[in-house]
Amino acid sequence: MDTAVPTAESGQSPDFPYNVFARGCPSRGTLEHVTGRWGALTLGALHCGTIRFNELRRRVDGVSEKMLSQTLHALERDGLVDRDARPTNPPRVDYSLTPLGREIAERLLPLIHFLEGRMDDVLEARERYDAAHEA
Amino acid sequence: MDTAVPTAESGQSPDFPYNVFARGCPSRGTLEHVTGRWGALTLGALHCGTIRFNELRRRVDGVSEKMLSQTLHALERDGLVDRDARPTNPPRVDYSLTPLGREIAERLLPLIHFLEGRMDDVLEARERYDAAHEA
Repeated sequence: MDTAVPTAESGQSPDFPYNVFARGCPSRGTLEHVTGRWGALTLGALHCGTIRFNELRRRVDGVSEKMLSQTLHALERDGLVDRDARPTNPPRVDYSLTPLGREIAERLLPLIHFLEGRMDDVLEARERYDAAHEA
Repeated sequence: MDTAVPTAESGQSPDFPYNVFARGCPSRGTLEHVTGRWGALTLGALHCGTIRFNELRRRVDGVSEKMLSQTLHALERDGLVDRDARPTNPPRVDYSLTPLGREIAERLLPLIHFLEGRMDDVLEARERYDAAHEA
């Protein structure tokens, strides 16, 4: 695929045939699943281990049932999340990370923890920005 | 803020007063700016150095002028991007990462490169998923 070929301008490694900076590259969709509004939080929550849907929904505070369901489907389709439906009564569905999902979560969590640790700086920057743009 | 207090269940470090898993925590907004549809690509593209708006728009292939402008404003407000408008004719506006933005980009790029390197696995997983769900 032409659009997936990295160029010198993109700053990407030429070792990979995929390039998220190219609009037609399928890696862009996966980056969005992994880092989108709910994807990052879902992968982060699943990093603790296998959990059920409702427990996951409590951990990813504020996510709707529909959005969590869509997020999990996209991550399952990309091979990052395993869905294990048990034929019990009531039925029980467990979610866990695949080995690839775990490797991605391990690269996401340092970013999340770094951000949490620097939020005071972010909030100060917002105050400065808002003060400058009110004036 | 109560909702920002990490809990044992969230799996977050108790050392930080911010917790992206809590719906009211301001760190969640910043995580979305950093990892959202265009934020990650913009930070990744700026990691190469100072560039002008139009050059940035070419690197982040497919972004509209409006979306790139909104993305840059959110990142500037969070203190991750510097905007330098020169009073030349025509006016010239350069964008670059702040030191904090650079630290975040340095944590994002390994995730991006890892994903690019594992896209064959992702595409195979999608084929398996689609075949299983057609049947």
